[in-house]
Amino acid sequence: MLEDTIYLDNAAATRLDERVLEAMTPYFFELYAVATSQFGYSLGIDARDALEDARAQIASRIGAEPDEFIFTSGSTESSNLALKGVASAVSEARRHLVISPLEDFPVLHGARTLGKQGFDVTLVQVDETGRVDLEHLRDIVSPQTALVSIQMANQEIGTTQDLTAVGEICRENGALFHTDATHSFARLPLDVRDLPVDLITVAAHTIHGPKGIGGLFIRDGTPIRKWMDGGFQEFNLRPGVENIPGAVGFAKAVDLATSEERVRLQALRDRLIDALLQIPHTRLNGHPVHRLPHNANISFRFVEGESLLLHLDMRGFAVSTGSACFSRSLEASHVILGIGGNHERAHGSVRFTFGRYNEEGDVDAVAEAIADIVKELRRISPLGKDRS
Amino acid sequence: MLEDTIYLDNAAATRLDERVLEAMTPYFFELYAVATSQFGYSLGIDARDALEDARAQIASRIGAEPDEFIFTSGSTESSNLALKGVASAVSEARRHLVISPLEDFPVLHGARTLGKQGFDVTLVQVDETGRVDLEHLRDIVSPQTALVSIQMANQEIGTTQDLTAVGEICRENGALFHTDATHSFARLPLDVRDLPVDLITVAAHTIHGPKGIGGLFIRDGTPIRKWMDGGFQEFNLRPGVENIPGAVGFAKAVDLATSEERVRLQALRDRLIDALLQIPHTRLNGHPVHRLPHNANISFRFVEGESLLLHLDMRGFAVSTGSACFSRSLEASHVILGIGGNHERAHGSVRFTFGRYNEEGDVDAVAEAIADIVKELRRISPLGKDRS
Repeated sequence: MLEDTIYLDNAAATRLDERVLEAMTPYFFELYAVATSQFGYSLGIDARDALEDARAQIASRIGAEPDEFIFTSGSTESSNLALKGVASAVSEARRHLVISPLEDFPVLHGARTLGKQGFDVTLVQVDETGRVDLEHLRDIVSPQTALVSIQMANQEIGTTQDLTAVGEICRENGALFHTDATHSFARLPLDVRDLPVDLITVAAHTIHGPKGIGGLFIRDGTPIRKWMDGGFQEFNLRPGVENIPGAVGFAKAVDLATSEERVRLQALRDRLIDALLQIPHTRLNGHPVHRLPHNANISFRFVEGESLLLHLDMRGFAVSTGSACFSRSLEASHVILGIGGNHERAHGSVRFTFGRYNEEGDVDAVAEAIADIVKELRRISPLGKDRS
Repeated sequence: MLEDTIYLDNAAATRLDERVLEAMTPYFFELYAVATSQFGYSLGIDARDALEDARAQIASRIGAEPDEFIFTSGSTESSNLALKGVASAVSEARRHLVISPLEDFPVLHGARTLGKQGFDVTLVQVDETGRVDLEHLRDIVSPQTALVSIQMANQEIGTTQDLTAVGEICRENGALFHTDATHSFARLPLDVRDLPVDLITVAAHTIHGPKGIGGLFIRDGTPIRKWMDGGFQEFNLRPGVENIPGAVGFAKAVDLATSEERVRLQALRDRLIDALLQIPHTRLNGHPVHRLPHNANISFRFVEGESLLLHLDMRGFAVSTGSACFSRSLEASHVILGIGGNHERAHGSVRFTFGRYNEEGDVDAVAEAIADIVKELRRISPLGKDRS
């Protein structure tokens, strides 16, 4: 690994903040009891207090009550529980699900599994920026719809959705509304007192918190059944010995993700987008305004994204192509294809994610390197000849 | 919390070892990439190397190949995947499951869920020490049996099973064999090259490793399908961003759990059992020989276990009653009831778990305190009058 690598890929937001580890440490070494052992001795009660404080703090960030938030092992599990837990609890008269084609794999594949179990799954149409077509949504959601699952922000192109409008359409039809907020939680405002949403998937590792911990907001009264079998933890909705250090670290990470930081990251994002769009034959993927503050996604025509990544790596920059879960494969991103892109555009797209440790100088350096590499790649590529 | 509390409950084995945190730390702050981002840049490859090294190390501890071991969020998830992943992959001709009535909740409740989905679930009989009746097992396992799930060691009474004999009965009938080794992994020898077992649930938090990480051994060729929907991680069997710090910490914890430590813990256990059995009207729950090296479980007649716990807490000792997942409830332990105990015995039973940080002096001090408290409780109890 290069000592001075600059991370502008999804890892940029996954580096743990030192203050998070500091908050977790007492729960590794002193207050390490099992929270459920609360009858009978002090340490178990102290452990439970720490867990409940962390829960209350995270819940309050979205305007929820503490008992409306449960901890899970991460956003993948949260989305599985949301979809499958609701599917097993709703009335037999509701056997219809709606998702967007741009959802991340837990929702996309979770819906496919429910489809095999007798649910009718409809994909709502999205426009070329990735925004849900609300007219189409209104046409397909009906009193037979059990659940609509539409992400708050896309994991690759950063496009955010109009959750209020989506939620109102759900409410009108008595359908439940789940949103995967893995990439937007604590980065964009979200208040369940205003927003007609019933379930929200969140994770810690996207905001410099620990890996292996996430959560699910479940609005009071939402029909849902436990999906993972085991003990009676987390209001009997998520079994397993509680990961108290993880919960405490998650709460600290939420605390550290401020609106001031959002403004700072957004400025970095816009600086990079402006610089890269000056390169010929480039386009911004996703919406220019309704997008994550810390995400940029650019397509470079006549260039393979993988080649660009390799050259950037050699120069000490880490960026992503494809989706976070899928970079090992060279399959085209379902997100770029889903907004009407072709395979060439999918393979020529690069995602940049900004985190707490990125600075303006990183943006200028990577933009300069990319301009240079793209020119060179287009020069040697049969596709790119004379196109730079 | 008392500064000088001595932990002899399940928390005694869950305190993180400082060396585990030390091993994890570089993966929080320097090598924090997403392992699946391996195409294109160095950090992703380094992260993947760390994950694969941890996997190989843990697999080798049980004589398995690295690709026979996957990481999960803990033993609850591992057991869910084992039962439900196998249930969805086996032939339609096999719709029978066998478990023991003493299994921990993930297997107990997981089997109940499969029962509702059309599987026929049979409970094998156990003797008064908690050992499986092998003759009965032979009678009930048949060519219709998909899976037998019998734990390696009990979570409360510490009884270990004859896994070789159980596995052979499974093999004769073409049934798969899963064992929940949450409490015995790295504490007792286990080698899949000798043992006819197909799936093994393990966890890190029982051996001074981190919470929120566990694993599942899956013998090459075992029919199993992904249970949690999402990305393609962990050989496409367990999705979600990999918890690399957790995996590295788990491997370190395995490394630190030596056979020398087993011998030391076993001596502490035997010292405590010997001392406590000198108190009148006491009995050891579980098997005297076939038991976890770090577990003792004693019933005190004419005493409420909860009262004993409270008095011990006031004197600075932490012990457990009931099961780890259930101490919040005052329901009687299904394990003590399952070995033929009545409610009185269940409520008067106390579990002691030994960990790395316990010393001989702890044993002597807690034994002395218990002798004293039991005498006093029996004196004031209408049940115990003149029984001390």
